[in-house]
Amino acid sequence: MVNLKGTRLKEVKGAIIGEIRGVDELVRELRGCAFGAGRLAKAVDIYEEMLNEETTKFMGIAGALVPAGMRDIIAEMIRERYVDVVVTTGANLVHDIIEALGEHHYKIKEADENANVAVDDVWLREQGMERIYDVVVHEEAFARLEDFIRSVFENLTRKNGDKSYSIRELTKTIGENISDRNSILRSAVDSEVPVFCPAIADSMIGLHAWIYKQTNDLRVDAFDDMKELIDIFCEANRTGAIILGGGVPKNFIFQTALIAPPREEGQEGFDYAIQITTETPEDGSLSGATLEEAKSWGKIGAKANAVTVYCDATIALPVIVAAVRERRRE
Amino acid sequence: MVNLKGTRLKEVKGAIIGEIRGVDELVRELRGCAFGAGRLAKAVDIYEEMLNEETTKFMGIAGALVPAGMRDIIAEMIRERYVDVVVTTGANLVHDIIEALGEHHYKIKEADENANVAVDDVWLREQGMERIYDVVVHEEAFARLEDFIRSVFENLTRKNGDKSYSIRELTKTIGENISDRNSILRSAVDSEVPVFCPAIADSMIGLHAWIYKQTNDLRVDAFDDMKELIDIFCEANRTGAIILGGGVPKNFIFQTALIAPPREEGQEGFDYAIQITTETPEDGSLSGATLEEAKSWGKIGAKANAVTVYCDATIALPVIVAAVRERRRE
Amino acid sequence: MVNLKGTRLKEVKGAIIGEIRGVDELVRELRGCAFGAGRLAKAVDIYEEMLNEETTKFMGIAGALVPAGMRDIIAEMIRERYVDVVVTTGANLVHDIIEALGEHHYKIKEADENANVAVDDVWLREQGMERIYDVVVHEEAFARLEDFIRSVFENLTRKNGDKSYSIRELTKTIGENISDRNSILRSAVDSEVPVFCPAIADSMIGLHAWIYKQTNDLRVDAFDDMKELIDIFCEANRTGAIILGGGVPKNFIFQTALIAPPREEGQEGFDYAIQITTETPEDGSLSGATLEEAKSWGKIGAKANAVTVYCDATIALPVIVAAVRERRRE
Amino acid sequence: MVNLKGTRLKEVKGAIIGEIRGVDELVRELRGCAFGAGRLAKAVDIYEEMLNEETTKFMGIAGALVPAGMRDIIAEMIRERYVDVVVTTGANLVHDIIEALGEHHYKIKEADENANVAVDDVWLREQGMERIYDVVVHEEAFARLEDFIRSVFENLTRKNGDKSYSIRELTKTIGENISDRNSILRSAVDSEVPVFCPAIADSMIGLHAWIYKQTNDLRVDAFDDMKELIDIFCEANRTGAIILGGGVPKNFIFQTALIAPPREEGQEGFDYAIQITTETPEDGSLSGATLEEAKSWGKIGAKANAVTVYCDATIALPVIVAAVRERRRE
Repeated sequence: MVNLKGTRLKEVKGAIIGEIRGVDELVRELRGCAFGAGRLAKAVDIYEEMLNEETTKFMGIAGALVPAGMRDIIAEMIRERYVDVVVTTGANLVHDIIEALGEHHYKIKEADENANVAVDDVWLREQGMERIYDVVVHEEAFARLEDFIRSVFENLTRKNGDKSYSIRELTKTIGENISDRNSILRSAVDSEVPVFCPAIADSMIGLHAWIYKQTNDLRVDAFDDMKELIDIFCEANRTGAIILGGGVPKNFIFQTALIAPPREEGQEGFDYAIQITTETPEDGSLSGATLEEAKSWGKIGAKANAVTVYCDATIALPVIVAAVRERRRE
Repeated sequence: MVNLKGTRLKEVKGAIIGEIRGVDELVRELRGCAFGAGRLAKAVDIYEEMLNEETTKFMGIAGALVPAGMRDIIAEMIRERYVDVVVTTGANLVHDIIEALGEHHYKIKEADENANVAVDDVWLREQGMERIYDVVVHEEAFARLEDFIRSVFENLTRKNGDKSYSIRELTKTIGENISDRNSILRSAVDSEVPVFCPAIADSMIGLHAWIYKQTNDLRVDAFDDMKELIDIFCEANRTGAIILGGGVPKNFIFQTALIAPPREEGQEGFDYAIQITTETPEDGSLSGATLEEAKSWGKIGAKANAVTVYCDATIALPVIVAAVRERRRE
Repeated sequence: MVNLKGTRLKEVKGAIIGEIRGVDELVRELRGCAFGAGRLAKAVDIYEEMLNEETTKFMGIAGALVPAGMRDIIAEMIRERYVDVVVTTGANLVHDIIEALGEHHYKIKEADENANVAVDDVWLREQGMERIYDVVVHEEAFARLEDFIRSVFENLTRKNGDKSYSIRELTKTIGENISDRNSILRSAVDSEVPVFCPAIADSMIGLHAWIYKQTNDLRVDAFDDMKELIDIFCEANRTGAIILGGGVPKNFIFQTALIAPPREEGQEGFDYAIQITTETPEDGSLSGATLEEAKSWGKIGAKANAVTVYCDATIALPVIVAAVRERRRE
Repeated sequence: MVNLKGTRLKEVKGAIIGEIRGVDELVRELRGCAFGAGRLAKAVDIYEEMLNEETTKFMGIAGALVPAGMRDIIAEMIRERYVDVVVTTGANLVHDIIEALGEHHYKIKEADENANVAVDDVWLREQGMERIYDVVVHEEAFARLEDFIRSVFENLTRKNGDKSYSIRELTKTIGENISDRNSILRSAVDSEVPVFCPAIADSMIGLHAWIYKQTNDLRVDAFDDMKELIDIFCEANRTGAIILGGGVPKNFIFQTALIAPPREEGQEGFDYAIQITTETPEDGSLSGATLEEAKSWGKIGAKANAVTVYCDATIALPVIVAAVRERRRE
């Protein structure tokens, strides 16, 4: 028996694959492991507790998760209320709409291990194919996006020309105009999950807003989202953050906690946090910053149940969600 | 002599330190090297060419570069017109203002190699110290920031209550209210360099805008910046991008090129690009995406002179700027 | 339908968690995804094909996988002949022996997300605890290791003082002296899987060899392993490499293919390769080098079925092995 | 003034490029910075102190630094006794010999930012070009290497067929047979700097040893180097480690300190350490392990002056060496 500062240390208990069946069984085996395996298992335990404890769950989505094939998982999480609030980059909305319009993303170099090799981007440009790592989108998809977004803007301004919209109202209106029930934006509307997108100007939606505004009036306020987001945080019984990939969504979710008054004496910040990121803290970037660092700001509670899984989100997210879903079915 | 596809390959030529004096001499030695060394040397050559060729230079700033001590270098680059347009995260503006108000950032664990070790973030929280990797800021600095930002908002709305501002007008007004001539925002005003910040809501400035808007009218449009940015791009003779750390600023700069009509037949996208990042392409993130990938979108010209330096920007930026400055003094 | 160079591109098909049960079902859902998810799914397909095709499977083990809890999985892979040849760092053998002797590894900071925080390594030193990221080992475990290794050396030299041993003979003798059937080294002996360790001097076993050689004669040849390894490669019907973490084991496995004569006209190098690594190619390191690069050397066949999963091996390895095992049980 | 646990914290002091000339001046400006910049400046200060304090300096070399163009810098460091002991991977020796024989490494895709793009490794294979990231070597260079290595083996065994050599004796003999005074191995011979290479079997030298041993007797002991290395450590007044890239060289250097008796009460481990690596601790790998972790093992002294620079060594090494050399000339 080994003690450290009065605490009996837990032995590393090797995972055994053996005859296990099921993602949750696998994850339970990883509980006794260290490094990424232990963190992954802990993320599942935290997520399960969040779901059991009436937690308002904020999910931040950065990185091209929709082009990579995570759209259905995210939409499903929204419909099943595995998340209650979404904060995302504009790009993931753009690609969600593209799929909702019946357009597709395509994988290149399926046969090869390294997608970069022998892909000539100048040649792709000539074919009208735009690349996101090992995925391409045809420019026709963006042409259809333009028509769709423009019609949403027209509806908005026709209805109520003078009104200034919040970005969250804009994303809701887009969702209402989508018929594909597997869409993230449509699922959010159906499930009354608000979708915030603070840097929406930094996306194709922003570009088309600019074009539209050349000849029309469209007012979207840069700061109006904060009130709703902060209200949700303040009214929550318990709060949890699921951060995929860092970026603006990570900070926008966490900064909410900076303003909210402590719920009880000494109880400030998020109660739960799961961060999945490939970035590490050593370069000082926010995306790689530890959840411990977030405690110094009061973004995360001093006693929060929190873990960072250093992993490609397209690997860790499906494993975590599948494990939690299996566990809850039992 | 070795040929590859008809091109004579250049030999790797080892760098020799010997008796060299000067950053530029060192970088010239690295020209014959491969890996990061060769890329760093190429970045200096590209920057020099940008400056010689009447290029409009767009700089994207992501990551906590101001807390890390890069504020003076960036402000100097603005004053010397090493950059003509700035796109930044809100956090760097916040920390620029904090320094302009006479407050400071502090280094922790100066004596130790690993800043994380033995720093207890919960304890820091109790001391009112907020941590950014190996830097802390006292909460008093944020209290002074609040007073300052509030007074700027008051001036804005007192002058012209009905007006809807663009974010770039907001950053300019902040800059005009700063007396510290070494400030990034003040230097930008003095040198007529516009500062865009598409995700400004995602910062302390955004939080204070929310508070202010509880009782006042303040209108800042989410999309109004794009027109000015795109105009600058379209009017430029030649265009260059200097991308520090990816994120929203990287995409916001590059997407400008998606809308601008080609200057001449087949000449679209940025003519020059230097990207300094610690992220790599393998996780599909935009921040780590190669500049080749950007060519498939037309963000970068097919024949652009472009390089990515995979490096902590606090190391690569000072070396590159110092080398270019030395070279131009000769 | 979108074509690229005459090939119909596959659409990204979003993964759906829904009611799936089982690791293999999950991985099948990831087949249509891109980025890391697609690579993970491909790794499972390649592994399955390796097992179906009478492939001699070489596994390289670098990184502290045993302290992290991967010992049982690796031992099981050996016993089930999921691998036929092991090349490892010395450290993993040391930690395998420690566990075989009944000693343990312990997890620190189980409750916190960041193992580095508030762990004072100088204080750990005073407690006789040696740290490997979020794992510690007590120095008493190393004392028992010393006794054990010394007794193995004594047996070796008593039996046959003049003989020069290969490193692989040394690892086999160690395995024969281990009674714990879950040990990697013992499982290898039981399953007749050779264990190579080219840098064995770079480990506690090396240190104890040095001490032993102060007063005894012990001859272990640095180069004698290569013959056996190359013979196994040459005699194989088909060859596969499973590379965990790069380092010396990766290169030692791949360089085997440099000498072996092509099995048939134009058929050189490994037929299959799965690489799991957190390192990326951009710094020019061997550990992060792509499997494409390995083709330029002839280490991997031009038509090899190969994939790199950029992921912490403690996450990807259990998922891959569990999926393959489920699939083969069906 | 801000205090933390009784220590007055140092303000971050922004670097100013201005009119500075010289690498050392630049590095002095970075002293007040945080993140990588502060670490780089600290590395220069530590190196200077090592050189002023009669320190025995052990340098570990992993990663393909010679192909990248770092050969002359390393050879110069040896000749100027900036290092006193070298521990390296076999690959760097192989590439040093290739250059010494008048063969070359070549840069590919000089014009493009991303060396991977449009390089077809299967095509390279057909041209007899072997690739290391953005560098290629022609197979003819390896043919000349083979002749050279074989002649060294022949000389060794002709002279003294029965003798068992240590690896360090082998690297010395190779160096003695090299006429190029800029070679690392030859410089080491000329300057009486021992070169250790614990995993030499894992290199082309190892492959040729295997071929040679098919028909000849060549005895190289796997463990014999340790005595000399440990003796050097024990006899040193003060000890310093310069670790480039981790791997076997890092551990082999540090494990030396595990056996050496403390020089004085409580004074164990290296007195100085500089680590330059692109790997981070989060995956538990030795290469990315912090120097703090090394303190828990006693590899580094509790009060050692140590820093990790998270950076491509081809960038950080030239800057550090150039700065130290400038500083010492003053």
